[in-house]
Amino acid sequence: MKKYFISKSRRLRSTPYTSRIEKQGVSAYTVYNHMLLPAAFGSLEDSYHHLKQHVQIWDVAAERQVEISGKDSAKLVQLMTCRDLSKSKIGRCYYCPIVDDNGGLINDPVILKLDEERWWISIADSDVILFAKGLAIGNKFDVKIFEPNVDILAVQGPKSFKLMEKIFGVKITQMKFFGFDYFEFDGAKHLIARSGWSKQGGYEIYVEHTKSGLALYDKLFEVGKEFNVKAGCPNLIERIESALLSYANDIDNNDNPFECGLDKYVNLDSNVNFLGKEKLKEVKKNGITKKLMGVMIDAKEINVSKSIYLINEKNSKIGELRSGVYSPHFKKVIGIAMLNKPYWEVSQTFKISINDSVFEGKVCDLPFI
Amino acid sequence: MKKYFISKSRRLRSTPYTSRIEKQGVSAYTVYNHMLLPAAFGSLEDSYHHLKQHVQIWDVAAERQVEISGKDSAKLVQLMTCRDLSKSKIGRCYYCPIVDDNGGLINDPVILKLDEERWWISIADSDVILFAKGLAIGNKFDVKIFEPNVDILAVQGPKSFKLMEKIFGVKITQMKFFGFDYFEFDGAKHLIARSGWSKQGGYEIYVEHTKSGLALYDKLFEVGKEFNVKAGCPNLIERIESALLSYANDIDNNDNPFECGLDKYVNLDSNVNFLGKEKLKEVKKNGITKKLMGVMIDAKEINVSKSIYLINEKNSKIGELRSGVYSPHFKKVIGIAMLNKPYWEVSQTFKISINDSVFEGKVCDLPFI
Repeated sequence: MKKYFISKSRRLRSTPYTSRIEKQGVSAYTVYNHMLLPAAFGSLEDSYHHLKQHVQIWDVAAERQVEISGKDSAKLVQLMTCRDLSKSKIGRCYYCPIVDDNGGLINDPVILKLDEERWWISIADSDVILFAKGLAIGNKFDVKIFEPNVDILAVQGPKSFKLMEKIFGVKITQMKFFGFDYFEFDGAKHLIARSGWSKQGGYEIYVEHTKSGLALYDKLFEVGKEFNVKAGCPNLIERIESALLSYANDIDNNDNPFECGLDKYVNLDSNVNFLGKEKLKEVKKNGITKKLMGVMIDAKEINVSKSIYLINEKNSKIGELRSGVYSPHFKKVIGIAMLNKPYWEVSQTFKISINDSVFEGKVCDLPFI
Repeated sequence: MKKYFISKSRRLRSTPYTSRIEKQGVSAYTVYNHMLLPAAFGSLEDSYHHLKQHVQIWDVAAERQVEISGKDSAKLVQLMTCRDLSKSKIGRCYYCPIVDDNGGLINDPVILKLDEERWWISIADSDVILFAKGLAIGNKFDVKIFEPNVDILAVQGPKSFKLMEKIFGVKITQMKFFGFDYFEFDGAKHLIARSGWSKQGGYEIYVEHTKSGLALYDKLFEVGKEFNVKAGCPNLIERIESALLSYANDIDNNDNPFECGLDKYVNLDSNVNFLGKEKLKEVKKNGITKKLMGVMIDAKEINVSKSIYLINEKNSKIGELRSGVYSPHFKKVIGIAMLNKPYWEVSQTFKISINDSVFEGKVCDLPFI
């Protein structure tokens, strides 16, 4: 596939780490929350194997935060998500679908409860801040909403625990998954969560103090030598194998959480008030008409830059592939697809056209691994 | 400057014209409203000269529309902009700063009044749809808000009038600037406005019927041969010379309309109700502390991928350059900068560091030409 350059400008914001990753061999970017997100360091497969065996440092500053504080902050945050946050705890992260009044997904962030009246919404790629501001203004909520200067560094891979222990001590290895705490480095406190956009384990460092954060970046590479540390970025193969959903790739505003397999994050029986609740009750009662599933395709390569239709033996469209990649583990193409009813059953077969050739595929459960 | 590739995915949406422009030699993209916006066809200077002499067809589908209709649509649209729309007319386009409750710019779209209760907000790069939805939900407005399938084709350059006349007849040449009307082609009606993101004259075709739009795309190139038509895209040199502001490059949420020279679009004495009105009255009373101005720099090249500070003779920061380019017309670098009070006067001198060399510059009025 022909490659195209990215045209840089102030509108596609750099991160504090951009000059570093450009020295470290980043070759491609994507744009995420109006910011540069590194998309390739060398070959995708080499990075995949390295991520699964060693440890990588990722510039994921593009995961921006929407900070909501003030008397009505809990009410506003709850209004935006179908997940019941009434029992949420300070020091914990919560994966929360954000839905509009029609039950359509607007984002699927991780929400951090910093304090009873202070929250960070760590967003996927859409301007949740504008939705929050609109809701707050319209409802006359007493809140403060802004995007703080937080530039996340992710430390991902099986050796991330050993690496972080060397810098922050054993305490950091005792943190539970989706917990967060504060750790000091070079005179500044950093919020560090045990989280990240891979299933290989690791941490996300919410850098608010850029100078200390840059020193930490360099320290991670210095100390990380013995663990074979490399610069990296979210890896398409790893994230599809692990079924980590990507907003606007796999799921979007035309989908509701039930269609995306997010049922466990939809708390319709709770007493809390959130947008789209009645609509989602209807969906639950009437059932869904499309469903996100895994697919395996007998092909050796694919580039998904837009939806690709899946066709049955009668040449009818039965769904669309939304992301896909060749998996060295399965030795075929795997992907995430939205299948129409009733074609979403495991083992349903289909045909798909890739670069003018037709390939056979099969529906399967998510995650793949 | 080293170049980087763009990593394509469904999240960076293609347009109906993407496959055509890729055959026509697009070499770089930017991302705008989560969509691919072509950013280069051959050399920037060649495209600049061509645009000023001939006619170009641009895939600007990334200028997305937010459609707002229903009983409260006028109220909601007015709430979002500081420009008084109470006397607005069907069939006209209005450049409208959108501001939040703090007076900060959220977007600077062109708003089309389609009907008394139906509007298109033709947006710059931020999710205005989420702001509108939030406001509508919070205020319990009776409106319908969605992103229609509209993919704009721009026809720009001095020969655009002759080209469009050949296809649509003389009526299209009689349309006034920022007027729009409907024109038939290949069995479909297209809304066409006399507008566009250059000062070289031309039209924007709001394509709702993709099949007819693609036929029109091809027809424009066929008929356009005699006018030396080429595929193009918004041109950095032309747009800076003409001082066409780019949201998130030149102006952003930390700026208010007065700081950006948009005074004539702020109707504080009107009776209409809009967000930030009281805040903007305060700003007007107290005066601004920074101001958007032109700058000329004695340099031969520049790449602005983030703000670059402007320094005075005492080595104090007096402002920041937000976009810039070498202008073949002025034979130096020209740019758009935010200057701190009192350094925004015409002829104020400054120093700027570009690729580790220091250059002299001067403040000037906008537009340059």
